[in-house]
Amino acid sequence: MSVEQFATRHIGPGADDERRMLEAVGHDSIDELMDAAIPEVIRWHGTLDLPEAATEAEAIAELRALAARNTVAVSMIGLGYHGTHTPAVIRRNVLEDPAWYTAYTPYQPEISQGRLEALLNFQTMVTDLTGLATANASMLDEGTAAAEAMTLARRASKSKSRVYVVDADALPQTIAVITSRAEPLGIEVRVVDVERDELPGEFFGLHLQYPGASGAVRDHAGLVESAHAVGALVTVAADLLALTLLRAPGEIGADIAAGTTQRFGVPMGFGGPHAGYLAVRSGLERMLPGRLVGVSRDADGNPAYRLALQTREQHIRREKATSNICTAQVLLAVMAGMYAVYHGPDGLREIATRTHAMAARLAAGLRAGGVDVADVAFFDTVTARVPGAAAQVVAAAAERGVNLRLVDADRVGVSCDETTTLAHLAQVWAAFGVPAFDGAVDAALPVDLARTSDFLTHPVFRSHHSETAMLRYLRRLSDFDYALDRGMIPLGSCTMKLNATTEMEPVSWAEFANVHPFAPDAQTAGYREMIGQLESWLAEVTGYDAVSVQPNAGSQGELAGLLAIRSYHASRGETHRDVCLIPSSAHGTNAASAVMAGMRVVVVACDDNGNVDLVDLDAKIDKHRDALAAIMVTYPSTHGVYETGIASLCAKVHDAGGQVYVDGANLNALVGFAKPGRFGADVSHLNLHKTFCIPHGGGGPGVGPVAVRAHLAPFLPGDPLGAHADATPAISAAKYGSAGILPIPWAYLRMMGAEGLTRATGVAVLAANYVAARLRGHYPVLYAGNKGLVAHECILDLRPLTKATGVSVDDVAKRLIDYGFHAPTMSFPVAGTLMVEPTESEDLAELDRFCDAMIAIRAEIEQVAAGQWPAGDNPLTNAPHTAAMVSGDEWPHPYPRSVGAYPAGVDRAGKYWPPVRRIDGAYGDRNLVCSCPSPEAFED
Amino acid sequence: MSVEQFATRHIGPGADDERRMLEAVGHDSIDELMDAAIPEVIRWHGTLDLPEAATEAEAIAELRALAARNTVAVSMIGLGYHGTHTPAVIRRNVLEDPAWYTAYTPYQPEISQGRLEALLNFQTMVTDLTGLATANASMLDEGTAAAEAMTLARRASKSKSRVYVVDADALPQTIAVITSRAEPLGIEVRVVDVERDELPGEFFGLHLQYPGASGAVRDHAGLVESAHAVGALVTVAADLLALTLLRAPGEIGADIAAGTTQRFGVPMGFGGPHAGYLAVRSGLERMLPGRLVGVSRDADGNPAYRLALQTREQHIRREKATSNICTAQVLLAVMAGMYAVYHGPDGLREIATRTHAMAARLAAGLRAGGVDVADVAFFDTVTARVPGAAAQVVAAAAERGVNLRLVDADRVGVSCDETTTLAHLAQVWAAFGVPAFDGAVDAALPVDLARTSDFLTHPVFRSHHSETAMLRYLRRLSDFDYALDRGMIPLGSCTMKLNATTEMEPVSWAEFANVHPFAPDAQTAGYREMIGQLESWLAEVTGYDAVSVQPNAGSQGELAGLLAIRSYHASRGETHRDVCLIPSSAHGTNAASAVMAGMRVVVVACDDNGNVDLVDLDAKIDKHRDALAAIMVTYPSTHGVYETGIASLCAKVHDAGGQVYVDGANLNALVGFAKPGRFGADVSHLNLHKTFCIPHGGGGPGVGPVAVRAHLAPFLPGDPLGAHADATPAISAAKYGSAGILPIPWAYLRMMGAEGLTRATGVAVLAANYVAARLRGHYPVLYAGNKGLVAHECILDLRPLTKATGVSVDDVAKRLIDYGFHAPTMSFPVAGTLMVEPTESEDLAELDRFCDAMIAIRAEIEQVAAGQWPAGDNPLTNAPHTAAMVSGDEWPHPYPRSVGAYPAGVDRAGKYWPPVRRIDGAYGDRNLVCSCPSPEAFED
Repeated sequence: MSVEQFATRHIGPGADDERRMLEAVGHDSIDELMDAAIPEVIRWHGTLDLPEAATEAEAIAELRALAARNTVAVSMIGLGYHGTHTPAVIRRNVLEDPAWYTAYTPYQPEISQGRLEALLNFQTMVTDLTGLATANASMLDEGTAAAEAMTLARRASKSKSRVYVVDADALPQTIAVITSRAEPLGIEVRVVDVERDELPGEFFGLHLQYPGASGAVRDHAGLVESAHAVGALVTVAADLLALTLLRAPGEIGADIAAGTTQRFGVPMGFGGPHAGYLAVRSGLERMLPGRLVGVSRDADGNPAYRLALQTREQHIRREKATSNICTAQVLLAVMAGMYAVYHGPDGLREIATRTHAMAARLAAGLRAGGVDVADVAFFDTVTARVPGAAAQVVAAAAERGVNLRLVDADRVGVSCDETTTLAHLAQVWAAFGVPAFDGAVDAALPVDLARTSDFLTHPVFRSHHSETAMLRYLRRLSDFDYALDRGMIPLGSCTMKLNATTEMEPVSWAEFANVHPFAPDAQTAGYREMIGQLESWLAEVTGYDAVSVQPNAGSQGELAGLLAIRSYHASRGETHRDVCLIPSSAHGTNAASAVMAGMRVVVVACDDNGNVDLVDLDAKIDKHRDALAAIMVTYPSTHGVYETGIASLCAKVHDAGGQVYVDGANLNALVGFAKPGRFGADVSHLNLHKTFCIPHGGGGPGVGPVAVRAHLAPFLPGDPLGAHADATPAISAAKYGSAGILPIPWAYLRMMGAEGLTRATGVAVLAANYVAARLRGHYPVLYAGNKGLVAHECILDLRPLTKATGVSVDDVAKRLIDYGFHAPTMSFPVAGTLMVEPTESEDLAELDRFCDAMIAIRAEIEQVAAGQWPAGDNPLTNAPHTAAMVSGDEWPHPYPRSVGAYPAGVDRAGKYWPPVRRIDGAYGDRNLVCSCPSPEAFED
Repeated sequence: MSVEQFATRHIGPGADDERRMLEAVGHDSIDELMDAAIPEVIRWHGTLDLPEAATEAEAIAELRALAARNTVAVSMIGLGYHGTHTPAVIRRNVLEDPAWYTAYTPYQPEISQGRLEALLNFQTMVTDLTGLATANASMLDEGTAAAEAMTLARRASKSKSRVYVVDADALPQTIAVITSRAEPLGIEVRVVDVERDELPGEFFGLHLQYPGASGAVRDHAGLVESAHAVGALVTVAADLLALTLLRAPGEIGADIAAGTTQRFGVPMGFGGPHAGYLAVRSGLERMLPGRLVGVSRDADGNPAYRLALQTREQHIRREKATSNICTAQVLLAVMAGMYAVYHGPDGLREIATRTHAMAARLAAGLRAGGVDVADVAFFDTVTARVPGAAAQVVAAAAERGVNLRLVDADRVGVSCDETTTLAHLAQVWAAFGVPAFDGAVDAALPVDLARTSDFLTHPVFRSHHSETAMLRYLRRLSDFDYALDRGMIPLGSCTMKLNATTEMEPVSWAEFANVHPFAPDAQTAGYREMIGQLESWLAEVTGYDAVSVQPNAGSQGELAGLLAIRSYHASRGETHRDVCLIPSSAHGTNAASAVMAGMRVVVVACDDNGNVDLVDLDAKIDKHRDALAAIMVTYPSTHGVYETGIASLCAKVHDAGGQVYVDGANLNALVGFAKPGRFGADVSHLNLHKTFCIPHGGGGPGVGPVAVRAHLAPFLPGDPLGAHADATPAISAAKYGSAGILPIPWAYLRMMGAEGLTRATGVAVLAANYVAARLRGHYPVLYAGNKGLVAHECILDLRPLTKATGVSVDDVAKRLIDYGFHAPTMSFPVAGTLMVEPTESEDLAELDRFCDAMIAIRAEIEQVAAGQWPAGDNPLTNAPHTAAMVSGDEWPHPYPRSVGAYPAGVDRAGKYWPPVRRIDGAYGDRNLVCSCPSPEAFED
């Protein structure tokens, strides 16, 4: 292959590597290997109908042309999306830095202290500004955060009511998402003008917007009291920038706060990704969905961070989970948190004050010009009444390069932000036909809602205000972490492959970054064409008929797919179909999503080979035939095997009137060789951060498009600003979800082409089988399909070793850190095992380095077994070894320091040192601390 | 100050810091401090006449507008500047990565192993491709490399001739630079059509271009033989891409090869910066100018890299130096070397073959259309004869978005590169009025010049071809190094201050990056306006009347300034004025530059306070009154003092008919408070990588504009493509030198404004005095000016301690690594001292961390003095401590490991570990190895 072809850069092994790997697995060619591995019954023998692979330069040129068809206007639409200045030091050293964006979710906390600290900053920022006790480490957007707040209120409220009251001045897209989420759960949403109308007699929760979508800042304290009186919980959806000047939700008694942190330096990106937030008062912290970072301690008793209270989460609780949220928006949460670190409390106050002053001047100018501006307090947004002329004003402003909000025929909304200038105001006044105004202006903030409490008092928010200090802080934190830029992350099911720079670069371009999701269509032609192409390519790859990119995480894609099935059955008058079959091996999220879609989960057993037990399947179908809504399976299975029974499984479910949902998590093993939409599935969600190269970002962003066959297409997610609560739900707040990162999968598909994609699949399967072949003699490989082959990942069984020696999966995972690796997936789908997915991007040298490490660890376990090292004090149980530990003045361990520090084969000069020793997670769960600890905690 | 103001980000100390620092130095305000520090005789009390400070967003918007006024055309002009695809992974992770671009010159090799390895790759690439024994770690551009080759030939040749023969088919700008350099040295340049005309009977050197500027590839072996026969040395200026297909210069007997590596992934940048190269045959390596990286060993005997043969260099040899070259183009050399690493030999051959195929097709098409194309072998460039119509063809192509070379009225040059496409050829054919051509095409490379030898055989060029592997290699190397993104680099005289991201980002924009230096003016309006503004702002800041940004390093600026003085005297009929007075404290480069400008150096003594000895000055002026050309002084002095005698010094020299050259190295202590052009100087060069924020890049790029008063303005550097060898010399190959990085100082000046710049100077002086105040009780501070104040740096005297304890400056410098610092400047300007320049960008926390480390080291020295630790085995002499050393199974030292590893105050978790122990430089000089050592050398 030519050096010009991107596939040669994306795929790690070259021709020589490939030959040696094939030799090890005993096949002559990748084609032959794939013929052997993939059951013919699902095999697709065509060539993907995609444009011929572009070079990197060509793809960039095409994206430049698409970008040029977007218009970057001055955005004064508001509605939760605002212009913001991303500090350049944060853009370059977070958003554009592989050390941050190629990191995985911090499940291995010892090698994730950097992003865990960054997320703790984020949580501290949210709790400080909202005045609540505990915030999680980000939600997918404001709309879904508000929906999660609703279900949290439902769980926490003692009220028996199923009514949820929503402020009519809430963001319209938030109302849409809440309504879509409520319906399958049997919750009745009532949108109420809380200022004028009475609240219902009974309700379990109340959602207030603060400031409102209209811009109005109202004192909600009375409403909070009324809600509490009937046992309801109150969520305040609050603007964090406004909270630097306004009383905090916690200070008026709110139970929950939800919202977005987009305007803290995260580009609008035509809707996302940005970090939503969710915070709760004391007492609710253990009900909080999503990722939560907390402080615990390591083996030396030093403070150390890790994910807290994981037992709450869907992957543990499965169908008992109350939320299906998996991923967060870590990369964006890091950016928003760092924005607060960089500006500090005084800087944020200054930005808010300037923003408010602009809005106040704008209103004064409109009023001076005779325009009717509602006589309410406001922060950054003004609603002007121009009877019958709103569309005309909005059009006039657009002609001047400024986007305003068309509220209705009579009203125009204008929102200011930190990028607003006097020149922008002049354009707005001109659009309203009023003269420019330079008189004196009073603040329009209500005095009795003025914030008096301190925030961001932790030193981290006061120490990094010069660019030099900020740069070093970012470097220090990223150095703590292990990401793809250091070495392999062989996580089964998570497909940690290359996130190519050419894919990433367009994300920073203004024409993609600085577009408001509600900008007029005329300004977004390039975006919409790119999205249309991407959707059609994804349909081609998967064999489906229609795709929606709206779901902004895999979990949201699952929900969207299941809701489509639900609506489909309803459209046929079969609302009674509500049973969702889920194999026991499934990812816990599947079950949680089914529950959220209003389905009952029925588990189907797996046989000894890890395959769906077709006998049990028959039995379950029989039992639930009339109620059968769907089956959710992952293919290849979560065991990393191409199950041969898949076609028969699909047929059985279809025969019983059910729909087949194939979880696309493992699509990396199918692309070019099989299409779920062709082998029997009706719907899938994909994970663009797995197969299609959106980086994991340390735990988000993700994008989870949903792909369906034609009969389900009418039920795909709709525009959250359109009619809602009908068959097309609002899955996320913006029509195209996290549009801002879609250039990444677009570029990947465009540059790989049919041949490159197919080859990538083949090499991924080859690599997994190579690892299996090399390690089989040292660790049993669980499960295999045709001819003893695995698919794109393999499961190494440690249970016999653990039983014999006490050395656990955890010990091996932590010991791998000493060898310079991120651990494989631990204890999923089978407890006591490691699941390895090497992907196509790792070259043979790295695969061998990993296999060598695993083999060396096996020999170390042998030494424990042989009694050479005691069970409780050996290089495995003491792993990972920090530099401080191995250079300590005392060395009380029965093995030499060099064995701890530099096991065989480790690059001594380039060794990665974790900053902390093994972390005691349970300690932190018992002593929950989820905001920045004081610096004194770190003193020696 | 507002968080919006860039100055608050650039300047480290905030208001609180400032107050505490002022307290420590005993002044009430910065104004008062500066009044005390700066002699009133030079003080300027105005406000700089600069545009009001822009915010970062405003500056970016203005640069976007300027960029939009440049046209990015398809460049087929050639002449040593070619379109190239910068691999995105290299752009993002080298050019845009602070770990690479904020690094200093690798004088402290233990903390520079990453860039030293990258440079060794570069050297290996050059030697392999040129077939010569030794290459240096880059030159400033091809023109200056060729000029250095000429003077090297002069030194090495046994011929007594002063004639240097230059191939008429050499690049015109190279001929201009060679000619400008030759004149003051008394060398006669003869431009000869070496193909047709006879060589002179006597000459000391011959410069050949390969392939020629016309594109012709000729076998130069016969000419090499003829030259050798008369004792001349032969330089072949060779295109490295062509050398993948053509016999290497070394294989035809060349003594020297020179050229550029621009087309190896480095954007054209309207002329620079790019890495030039210089390579020599065996036997000449100790005569090679510039930086040379070599392999030596560390205290454990492991291979380690460092700069080799430094005793050759100007800073050691002063007026005996044969070149004034200081800096290299490290950042660009790293990029070019990594381009070779990423593509490997096969990839480079493929690129060359494709490039050649395009040129061959182009020629075939032209011929088929009846255009007269010279019947010579060629690689990438074709010269077509279109009598009388050349301008018309060039214009027609430009209208089609393609730039061609207008050779003369009858000839057009067309050059292909790796970015050339068939669509581009179609445009060229159309411009020539010939039909598109798709017939078969033969290669046009001469069979007997085909390359048969291998190149890039070292594994490094065969192991990093996937993006994943490349990314990790870049990360691994950058992790070895200490740069500004880790902590303070308090280098006296080198001003390692913030290189802000907003300054850096525009460098990557296509409208700045992808412009050919010889593009028509109509396409470069934005560039030229930006440069004009920058020159005018620099003139305002310095008080001069005219500025040229052409010199692409400080050393080149010195030469340009001295040549202006020389020309000025000549214009007044005073060619006999050739004495240049230089104080003994001057940087060695000053003397070397004077010699290159044809001057005799006379040293003026300094008094005990480090000031120029005015008595000795009088004596020297008296002695050389008639021959006095100039005095070169640095202000503030290299001792970091505002000398009060400066005005009187200027007057004395002027009275004797001499000119005053003020070296602008220390301008950071003057901006806003004093203007050299106002206090008596006639000319200065500036270092844009010091005061004006161009990053050091690990040892380049630099930009050294020359600024002059009006009477010298006619003698500023001219356009190398214009008439040459007259009063306006060609200092570098491109008219605006390293234009591609000029957005950096432009942005800095634009965002700081008068107030910000002035405040920066004040804070820099405050910081130096703060350090002096804190350390004075522990180390004597040498030299001070008014009221005991230093300027922007201070010198700590270690000589008494060294005498008493044997602990050397080196030991302290290396021990600082253990504390997490880069050492200050060592033994300059005074042997046995450390010179500290904190700059304005370091905040008080970092200044205190540094002072605390120095004080702790002083206490460690005390322990040696007290005999608690033996002189030869203590934490100082063993520094720096590597992780491998402190975690070794044995610990034979008389102090605990923890003292070695984690001296007081060190951030344990975030500690930077050097990859090697102290390096024995002399060993490597005795055993010179300047290309990549085999991997086996690193085996334990």
